[in-house]
Amino acid sequence: MTSAANDLRDTLTRLGVQPEWVDTGQVTRSPVDGSRAGALAAATPEAVEDAIAMATDAFSAWRRVPAPRRGELVRLLGEELRIAKDDLARLVTLEAGKITSEGLGEVQEMIDVCDFAVGLSRQLYGLTLPSERPGHHMRETWQPLGPVAVITAFNFPVAVWAWNAALALVCGDPVIWKPSDKTSLVALAVQAVFDKAAARFGEDAPAGLCQVVIGGAEVGQALARDPRIPLVSATGSTRMGKAVAVDVAGRLGRSLLELGGNNAMILTETADLDMAVRAIAFSAVGTCGQRCTSLRRLLVHEDVAEGLIARLKAAYETLPVGDPREAGTLVGPLIDEAAVDAVQAALKQAVAEGGEVITGGQRLDRDGAYVRPAIVQMPEQSAIVRHETFGPILYVLTWRELDQAIAMQNAVPQGLSSCIFTDRLREAEQFLSAWGSDCGIANVNIGPSGAEIGGAFGGEKDTGGGRESGSDAWKAYMRRQTQTVNFSTSLPLAQGVRFDV
Amino acid sequence: MTSAANDLRDTLTRLGVQPEWVDTGQVTRSPVDGSRAGALAAATPEAVEDAIAMATDAFSAWRRVPAPRRGELVRLLGEELRIAKDDLARLVTLEAGKITSEGLGEVQEMIDVCDFAVGLSRQLYGLTLPSERPGHHMRETWQPLGPVAVITAFNFPVAVWAWNAALALVCGDPVIWKPSDKTSLVALAVQAVFDKAAARFGEDAPAGLCQVVIGGAEVGQALARDPRIPLVSATGSTRMGKAVAVDVAGRLGRSLLELGGNNAMILTETADLDMAVRAIAFSAVGTCGQRCTSLRRLLVHEDVAEGLIARLKAAYETLPVGDPREAGTLVGPLIDEAAVDAVQAALKQAVAEGGEVITGGQRLDRDGAYVRPAIVQMPEQSAIVRHETFGPILYVLTWRELDQAIAMQNAVPQGLSSCIFTDRLREAEQFLSAWGSDCGIANVNIGPSGAEIGGAFGGEKDTGGGRESGSDAWKAYMRRQTQTVNFSTSLPLAQGVRFDV
Amino acid sequence: MTSAANDLRDTLTRLGVQPEWVDTGQVTRSPVDGSRAGALAAATPEAVEDAIAMATDAFSAWRRVPAPRRGELVRLLGEELRIAKDDLARLVTLEAGKITSEGLGEVQEMIDVCDFAVGLSRQLYGLTLPSERPGHHMRETWQPLGPVAVITAFNFPVAVWAWNAALALVCGDPVIWKPSDKTSLVALAVQAVFDKAAARFGEDAPAGLCQVVIGGAEVGQALARDPRIPLVSATGSTRMGKAVAVDVAGRLGRSLLELGGNNAMILTETADLDMAVRAIAFSAVGTCGQRCTSLRRLLVHEDVAEGLIARLKAAYETLPVGDPREAGTLVGPLIDEAAVDAVQAALKQAVAEGGEVITGGQRLDRDGAYVRPAIVQMPEQSAIVRHETFGPILYVLTWRELDQAIAMQNAVPQGLSSCIFTDRLREAEQFLSAWGSDCGIANVNIGPSGAEIGGAFGGEKDTGGGRESGSDAWKAYMRRQTQTVNFSTSLPLAQGVRFDV
Amino acid sequence: MTSAANDLRDTLTRLGVQPEWVDTGQVTRSPVDGSRAGALAAATPEAVEDAIAMATDAFSAWRRVPAPRRGELVRLLGEELRIAKDDLARLVTLEAGKITSEGLGEVQEMIDVCDFAVGLSRQLYGLTLPSERPGHHMRETWQPLGPVAVITAFNFPVAVWAWNAALALVCGDPVIWKPSDKTSLVALAVQAVFDKAAARFGEDAPAGLCQVVIGGAEVGQALARDPRIPLVSATGSTRMGKAVAVDVAGRLGRSLLELGGNNAMILTETADLDMAVRAIAFSAVGTCGQRCTSLRRLLVHEDVAEGLIARLKAAYETLPVGDPREAGTLVGPLIDEAAVDAVQAALKQAVAEGGEVITGGQRLDRDGAYVRPAIVQMPEQSAIVRHETFGPILYVLTWRELDQAIAMQNAVPQGLSSCIFTDRLREAEQFLSAWGSDCGIANVNIGPSGAEIGGAFGGEKDTGGGRESGSDAWKAYMRRQTQTVNFSTSLPLAQGVRFDV
Repeated sequence: MTSAANDLRDTLTRLGVQPEWVDTGQVTRSPVDGSRAGALAAATPEAVEDAIAMATDAFSAWRRVPAPRRGELVRLLGEELRIAKDDLARLVTLEAGKITSEGLGEVQEMIDVCDFAVGLSRQLYGLTLPSERPGHHMRETWQPLGPVAVITAFNFPVAVWAWNAALALVCGDPVIWKPSDKTSLVALAVQAVFDKAAARFGEDAPAGLCQVVIGGAEVGQALARDPRIPLVSATGSTRMGKAVAVDVAGRLGRSLLELGGNNAMILTETADLDMAVRAIAFSAVGTCGQRCTSLRRLLVHEDVAEGLIARLKAAYETLPVGDPREAGTLVGPLIDEAAVDAVQAALKQAVAEGGEVITGGQRLDRDGAYVRPAIVQMPEQSAIVRHETFGPILYVLTWRELDQAIAMQNAVPQGLSSCIFTDRLREAEQFLSAWGSDCGIANVNIGPSGAEIGGAFGGEKDTGGGRESGSDAWKAYMRRQTQTVNFSTSLPLAQGVRFDV
Repeated sequence: MTSAANDLRDTLTRLGVQPEWVDTGQVTRSPVDGSRAGALAAATPEAVEDAIAMATDAFSAWRRVPAPRRGELVRLLGEELRIAKDDLARLVTLEAGKITSEGLGEVQEMIDVCDFAVGLSRQLYGLTLPSERPGHHMRETWQPLGPVAVITAFNFPVAVWAWNAALALVCGDPVIWKPSDKTSLVALAVQAVFDKAAARFGEDAPAGLCQVVIGGAEVGQALARDPRIPLVSATGSTRMGKAVAVDVAGRLGRSLLELGGNNAMILTETADLDMAVRAIAFSAVGTCGQRCTSLRRLLVHEDVAEGLIARLKAAYETLPVGDPREAGTLVGPLIDEAAVDAVQAALKQAVAEGGEVITGGQRLDRDGAYVRPAIVQMPEQSAIVRHETFGPILYVLTWRELDQAIAMQNAVPQGLSSCIFTDRLREAEQFLSAWGSDCGIANVNIGPSGAEIGGAFGGEKDTGGGRESGSDAWKAYMRRQTQTVNFSTSLPLAQGVRFDV
Repeated sequence: MTSAANDLRDTLTRLGVQPEWVDTGQVTRSPVDGSRAGALAAATPEAVEDAIAMATDAFSAWRRVPAPRRGELVRLLGEELRIAKDDLARLVTLEAGKITSEGLGEVQEMIDVCDFAVGLSRQLYGLTLPSERPGHHMRETWQPLGPVAVITAFNFPVAVWAWNAALALVCGDPVIWKPSDKTSLVALAVQAVFDKAAARFGEDAPAGLCQVVIGGAEVGQALARDPRIPLVSATGSTRMGKAVAVDVAGRLGRSLLELGGNNAMILTETADLDMAVRAIAFSAVGTCGQRCTSLRRLLVHEDVAEGLIARLKAAYETLPVGDPREAGTLVGPLIDEAAVDAVQAALKQAVAEGGEVITGGQRLDRDGAYVRPAIVQMPEQSAIVRHETFGPILYVLTWRELDQAIAMQNAVPQGLSSCIFTDRLREAEQFLSAWGSDCGIANVNIGPSGAEIGGAFGGEKDTGGGRESGSDAWKAYMRRQTQTVNFSTSLPLAQGVRFDV
Repeated sequence: MTSAANDLRDTLTRLGVQPEWVDTGQVTRSPVDGSRAGALAAATPEAVEDAIAMATDAFSAWRRVPAPRRGELVRLLGEELRIAKDDLARLVTLEAGKITSEGLGEVQEMIDVCDFAVGLSRQLYGLTLPSERPGHHMRETWQPLGPVAVITAFNFPVAVWAWNAALALVCGDPVIWKPSDKTSLVALAVQAVFDKAAARFGEDAPAGLCQVVIGGAEVGQALARDPRIPLVSATGSTRMGKAVAVDVAGRLGRSLLELGGNNAMILTETADLDMAVRAIAFSAVGTCGQRCTSLRRLLVHEDVAEGLIARLKAAYETLPVGDPREAGTLVGPLIDEAAVDAVQAALKQAVAEGGEVITGGQRLDRDGAYVRPAIVQMPEQSAIVRHETFGPILYVLTWRELDQAIAMQNAVPQGLSSCIFTDRLREAEQFLSAWGSDCGIANVNIGPSGAEIGGAFGGEKDTGGGRESGSDAWKAYMRRQTQTVNFSTSLPLAQGVRFDV
């Protein structure tokens, strides 16, 4: 098989993308085989300033374009994504290391959210509501907000942009995208696809409507601190998210944060074990355990733990780990060497905290950042278990009463995704109740990973509280205006206040 | 008339409130006549810690009480507020200096929001929605969030608590209230009223469901930084708001901010001047110009400026300024001496920036913090005009084209309230369009002040972005959970991803 | 105990109601002991005409009263109902035969829906939505509809009026109520309570806002055919409902129909039998089996049928049947002699169709229309089982596969309420799925009876399709208006049509 | 130019449609030149029965297909409509006589509603809501309804089907379409386009999902009376609508009716006359006055009437009337000879009632059903003015006070569309208020015709009350289910009822 670097360059060429390679800069090295695709220059402060100024100008024009017409641009984007689907998926595989099916799924998610946003473009519903004052009409209208900065992580290098951009565009907002510096190339490719859609759409799409700025934390910080950007949507680590949150709060801007998860499955005696084993494997090792929704904690009723662990061990030991481009591979590489080190450090700490490694954890003897997925049985929810390590480590713990299991599930700083496997109605509904899971996502008989775009996606606590994609997540991209029109000839005051000059 | 301090103590006694007076502490001095009602001790760090711990415990119980039953508590609170209305209004007058009608209006607003929240207690609607996977059900459910800290300002010493508390309570959240240290007594009175409602409600209301902690910025900061408080709702200055926002962001909590406004009226040639004069007077001098929605900038079409200013001058010069308890008084005192100084400093700066004081600004020669409301004609929107001075100063500026007027209206850091007076449809609708007012509140033929509780209240930019009261403002007090239930016997993945172990 | 007739008259007197007794007319005879309370004259055609004319006039005024103010009237109505609760409940018991607890529950339901409607009075949300045309605003507004005729049945002699009236009033609609001719007196009492609320409310409430017209089918028909009544809300038998529907359709009016139910419970092997027995007893014999949501068909998994039937038989045989005023009574009388005859005819037919009467069916040897509740095991879902007999007969049938049970549940003409008792998640969710119950109400581990006012109440097929009470049921009482405002200076056409004169 | 009949046949061939021509049957004669395209057999009762049976079977399968997947079929339908747009528009022109731009606009509307429905397929939102009972969850879910009969009129021969079908399909409902017998051929062509989309979609689309049945009133009646069809959506005359409504009501089915309009424009002194003249011309003569939203009544303030009429007369007399295929034609033919006769009879009656024909009304001396659009000044709103004549007649009346104009606007039996031209805010808002227009559509500074698909379309009174297309019109195609799940171990009753067995 050709080197990932060559493959990357060929795919970019097919998409008409010609990166401006530089000698020194952000090096893109494919996790698939460690080959070096090239280096890109990070955006200078001047370039970031230019991008923000362009977006600000674009906003003045774009907010006046009727929303259904804005939706037409997103529809065309969806068409162009359908055309470019295979190539974009290939880039996801090469740059982020995801297996082919996941790469395709990620582009499909971009397409789905475009379709959804097209429908939204004729909705964006505010309210009409009755006034307490005679001859008055009240309305709540959602107005375009302004330029949106979108900071994305390597693990969903394109879908998260699409979640944000599809909504922002129909809402009337330009987008400035700072992708992870580990996945800049696929971002450039997506920009090229967008440019095709915009060209078909015509001159109603102003220059600077969607832009990419390449760079690291300093570029993100410049965006976070700029008062011309009313919304910063950032996906990544909790550490990064707090920094963004504080920067944005300091200027009273709005943050939409999708940060770390430490997602658990509660497995009860009545769980369908065949389904559970499949769900666990996909959730814990898919994307090599680098999804924010990856399963990290398996909380098993003690009566079924032994059998389940045995089945999982067997399943794990036959997992095909390797080049994500190859058919049949289910586990590709981690994103880079540092990630491999972090996984191995975590396993070491787990053992130190009393854990037993049931299987996995070995680094593979080949180019690229490969490890075998690990299962670790833990005596209690110790420090390493409460910490999110971005890799394929599954901690297994046991419980006796459901209340206890739910308390364990909730006793971590993160609050993204959660699930229960049970066929008992009472258990499922308790898990979904006000005293059940404290996460933003709660699934029953589904792993924690793999959300549909129709629901709102995001979580609580250290996950940052943001919501993207479906439901009324679009409201984050607009400003709400409460309007009252007096068409009478008098001037009554609310709450019966009298003030007669 | 009896001294305000005696009046305060008598009213508290009627409500059954016995403050723990201390020798040194936060002194309550009535702005009505400067008389000293007594001093209260600020809450110690230990007391704040206790309050948070109690609220946390209360949350565990309260979230399990069905929301319609929680609504019953708020209904009883509304009944008790109706009973205590006159006394509470009197306290508002005595402690905050508002005239009687405004004091009553403020308590009415508490009652209104209780009625509204009772209805909400059977709504709090989430969504059911279709899954893309066969045999799956999707739901979005809103769950109770946790203890809410409510930090309020002196100018709406009780209504803002009610906006927050009525919603928080039906949403399942306990409330810890830190009132302004200038209006602690009426807060204690409201707590007593709440306690009566809770006693009638019975044991389903846990101890610590609503608490008051007295104190200044250090108490506010302790609340803002505590991770057990998922939501901090703060009303006050932009400076205070930024500090809270950064503290809360640093722990990835949620802020609901209602900060400064610098509210304008655009007055066109077709405005109904009789109505406009009344609206201007009420909006600019009501609450002695100390509402966050007070009118501060009057942007008049140049063809009607002269006549309007003359009418306003005449109206201003007959405004009855004085003891807010007296029938007929329309303008009571400012909150304290510092406010008087700030008003006079602002007038001085305005003159330095080219302004002409048309009328007003004089301090009254009597006890209490009284000034005459001022009108200042300004040559342009200079620094002092873009600054929010909390007092009865109205800056008047002129314009020629509506686009220009809207640009002026938007060219301040704050984004709370705004209005236009016109009888031209096109002007009104442009003002309400995506390229019109950038404020959270936009009125037509109504002053910027005096919102109904049915609409969402709040603003953009330096106003902080929060929304309270009506519409779906309740969502700030809950956490959203996206739930997917698989009731099939297979395990399809979203976006068609395949992962066959 | 005093005769029910005397009791009725005394209670009316306490409420200040003085019916105009006539010699011949609609006789009110209490089902409690058959005693004759008096006779009322049915409304003449001229009286009906007057009522409609008054309601039409009232509409012109009432629609201009702001909805939150209309809500205040409903709030006062709720207060007056709280005051009159015991007496109204007593009248329900005396005139309709319901036990005391049910009578009180029915009045509580009136109160609940008033509280709910008060909240609605600041909502009644329409939409603002984006236009595809530049410089256009789109809005959907809900406007008052006009006079509403409410035709109610004897079994919920007051709650159904309140469901309709509370919503209609906040929506801006006058109400003309034709109660069942079997329960006219309590209707007059409710009208008196309303009048008290209206008097407190003051002159904003026009004359004729709520009216009662006494009479039988001919009065109902006059209302159904009158084009000045845009909405006829009718509760009763399917036969009556079809007649109303056709009359209203013939003039293109709107019907809101709540007709018969033939409600089943599916009971699976994992059902909690203790709960199920209680639920069955309450659902099947509460209100002596005369609720539209009464349980009529018990579909039991064959493995648990025998034991369950034995338990039910035992429970039924100890049910206290008797004077509904007495503490301890759980089963009161049927509404009249004809109802007793109908129950006994149904039992006879059931036996003819192969059924076995397990217990009950005997008429009690005392004054009033009393029978013992019956359980009948049926070999199949024969004609009598598919028919709604308004009385305490429970047909028991068995099944083997859940698909079969759901098919049986759906294989009747009616579609009101349904339930399943199970602790298996898959069974519950299938029952609630698109291929589950075809009813308007579907409960899990709750009997079919006893809805909360927060949900929409009503059913499909022969049940008539109407929805009352919660959710967006209020929309039936308003007309929707799609508004588009062009504030630009050009005139674009939708869908890009060109038409240049 | 080729004969319309040949053109029709050629276009059908291009679309792959081969009608089964018969010797005697429903003759299709193009209104463009009267040429005979052929005759089709009406569906026999057996064929209708087969269609209903197939649709019933299709429903069992289709309701189980996840809604977002159903949306994918509609997305493909949108793609196929884009491909076939020109040909379908041509058929609309040839069979219904609409000018080319309107034919294209109609197909664009089909496409728009498909895009909108795709978005809906992930929404179809029900509610989650709080129960008053502990340990209970409440939900309102919208379920598929069943086969929908769609009866359409000649004047929107394809768009109305699309409004219904796009929504019905995503809602889970099969569709049986009975087009007007005057426009059967384009219906067959649309069916062919649908079949292409279904073939691409694959086997999830069951046979019989969308069907066309050709025929007249007897076929419509068979559909209206069949209990297997829960919803009949019918567009056409009020006479037809009443018949359908009564038939459907007699079996307690659901009707969605879009019937006649008698749409007015109120024109005030401040109206922009340039815009108004264009709007009047398009609204009154577009589609040769055969839209249900056509402008029929022009209510002009008396001060501007004379000038306006003169301008309209001039504009009318230069209107290009002729073959709708020709570029430049703005007015095509009426649908048939009977329509010409009806127009001329109406003009005669108008004169008899005191009217003066300002211009137009002459039949053109050429093949096809052509008349010149007419303006008739009327002394009052006499019988002919209150009647909907389906053709290009515009009645002009004058008024002095706005209240009077609104009363005139409302004083007709129909309630579809309405508009006002004014630049006065108070007038516009009054028109949009609860005491303004009584129509389902109310426009400001737009003619009554030409709705966007994002709003709900339909009207009140004799217009039938149905709503189609945008907003929550989709709810008509589903059944609502209120679900309550008890996951506690006790069995509380609503409203606090006690019933302890």
